[in-house]
Amino acid sequence: MLDWIDSYEERKWQTATEGTVRYALLGLGWWTIDVALPAIESSDLGEVTTLVSSSTEKAERLAEENDVENGISYDEYHDGAASDQFDAVYVGTPNAYHLEYVETAAELDKAVICEKPMEATVERAKRLVEACEAADIPLMIAYRMHTDPAVQRAKELIDKGFLGEPVSVYGNNSQPLLEMIPDPDQWRLDPNLSGYGTSVMDLGVYSINTARYLLDRDPVAVHARMSSHHEAFEDVSDERSAATLVLEDDVKMVTTNSQHAHEDTNLKLTGTEGQIEFQPAFHGEVTLQLSRGNVTVTVDHDTFNAEREMMEEFDYFADRVLTGAPMHADGRHGLTDMRVIEAIHHSAESGDIVEL
Amino acid sequence: MLDWIDSYEERKWQTATEGTVRYALLGLGWWTIDVALPAIESSDLGEVTTLVSSSTEKAERLAEENDVENGISYDEYHDGAASDQFDAVYVGTPNAYHLEYVETAAELDKAVICEKPMEATVERAKRLVEACEAADIPLMIAYRMHTDPAVQRAKELIDKGFLGEPVSVYGNNSQPLLEMIPDPDQWRLDPNLSGYGTSVMDLGVYSINTARYLLDRDPVAVHARMSSHHEAFEDVSDERSAATLVLEDDVKMVTTNSQHAHEDTNLKLTGTEGQIEFQPAFHGEVTLQLSRGNVTVTVDHDTFNAEREMMEEFDYFADRVLTGAPMHADGRHGLTDMRVIEAIHHSAESGDIVEL
Repeated sequence: MLDWIDSYEERKWQTATEGTVRYALLGLGWWTIDVALPAIESSDLGEVTTLVSSSTEKAERLAEENDVENGISYDEYHDGAASDQFDAVYVGTPNAYHLEYVETAAELDKAVICEKPMEATVERAKRLVEACEAADIPLMIAYRMHTDPAVQRAKELIDKGFLGEPVSVYGNNSQPLLEMIPDPDQWRLDPNLSGYGTSVMDLGVYSINTARYLLDRDPVAVHARMSSHHEAFEDVSDERSAATLVLEDDVKMVTTNSQHAHEDTNLKLTGTEGQIEFQPAFHGEVTLQLSRGNVTVTVDHDTFNAEREMMEEFDYFADRVLTGAPMHADGRHGLTDMRVIEAIHHSAESGDIVEL
Repeated sequence: MLDWIDSYEERKWQTATEGTVRYALLGLGWWTIDVALPAIESSDLGEVTTLVSSSTEKAERLAEENDVENGISYDEYHDGAASDQFDAVYVGTPNAYHLEYVETAAELDKAVICEKPMEATVERAKRLVEACEAADIPLMIAYRMHTDPAVQRAKELIDKGFLGEPVSVYGNNSQPLLEMIPDPDQWRLDPNLSGYGTSVMDLGVYSINTARYLLDRDPVAVHARMSSHHEAFEDVSDERSAATLVLEDDVKMVTTNSQHAHEDTNLKLTGTEGQIEFQPAFHGEVTLQLSRGNVTVTVDHDTFNAEREMMEEFDYFADRVLTGAPMHADGRHGLTDMRVIEAIHHSAESGDIVEL
């Protein structure tokens, strides 16, 4: 087992050691201000020069509070304000607004790092990708798990055969959303802003995408069931959801997600020869458990929290922007998740398998 | 949290403190000899007087080795040999033989404790139940999790509202069968003896039944996918399987099972207010993890191994036999699992949801 563990080396992806990508941040919720902003500030290759929000006043206030140069409104952003002072935009708004901000970024010739899920629907996500491709600007979808050191380590082990043949995957992502954000009218419960629903879009995407990334296999068929019960969830169909996904090579994946349940994030990959489990997986300090035969090892890195993951992610993104190298996860990669999420909702509505 | 933990009391079911149920054991594989036999010998209310096997010679040899009075063949058992020396039979043979031995037990007016799954098919399981009902003999299906102290404790907590509303369940049961029993022709891989298949029948039944028992809710709809890859699995369809089950009250359950994978047994129940997890759940020393809010407690009992579970189970069974009280899990309870397993196989074959 120690042979497996010892081999890990952090940031194998890093190629740039100098240069700075200057960011405009769009969508100034708690995630952007409390996680993304400090992550960039503590990164090697990034700095935040511009905050963009609904009003100039709010943006300026937050810019001042956080020691950022410019605070501008969305209208000003669309008009190109301060655009000589940022090289890239981070889009952390509600899903259904991503497209318009990315389209403007494309017009302004800025690199884009866009939060997942990419947009509210497959159709809009496709337009988002096409806008970036037409303008030839880099587009990365902000799957922060990809650059989490625990996930990187696991991916390296899986690529070397740690699991044997992958057999099954389990992912759960549940949280008590109304306790975390006690507002029944929040955007995550509004399908006009969130898209197909809430639990799969906002939570399920973690299990699906991280499994795809780690196993390098995409879903080919999907079965799902979902239901809503609490009155705050009356406009969305997936207060709780469950799905069976068949990935390439007949890997069986099951996943449950709920925005109205005890908090738990868990990803487990089982193979013919070993098992890799993350618990917590997607929030909090990611803990990695590696099992082969009768031996189980728990790997704790120093700080696998969200800010550290985001710092890694922004440095990876900046590294690729500065060197012009291709980046993962690109828009096409993100589009596959959108198609899977759409299929999950279609399957739950129809009761049928949806093939992808 | 301590309020929840402190309330547990072992063996609340116990009503008899004296009396002895004398057993004949049928099917002398390692489970019966190494686990069931010592469990009965260390139980309060049971003793083994008779071993039944394919030949008189084998039965007599094993009886002598294990200090048991009688060793008889299946033919002799059917003819009523030694039947004045046992009150109950434990049926631990391959699934497809259960019916004939239970029918004889019914004729001999003996109580029956029968291993799960009950039989190879729903149709045969139904005949098994009807034979016992017609003869008015007690029939218990040997779900050893029901009397595991960890499961008893969890059930008590769930009944008191520990989970809040149950939201989702995850169960996995996987093991490397060919490493454990290196014989490609073993009965668990022969559908004539095992029934619908191998992974769901032999392993999946644990997750399904324990979830049913803990939540007191049965599956109402099932989706499943399965596949076989290794040549030893060519006669069965479920070397690996995955299923989504909707339980009553829209509880979403997902489960994966494989007879050709790294060993892992895990059951997790998530509610609106708490979570209960068993890992390992079905083999080894069951560990119980209880979470509510930000607090997680791990409960280790002394000896939650299979022999201890079986001892509890045999004492529970004997308690009910001696007092004539109704017993859980009875044949009708076991029949529901058979119908669920059949539905899982039908769904995997057809690709459709199967409603129950």
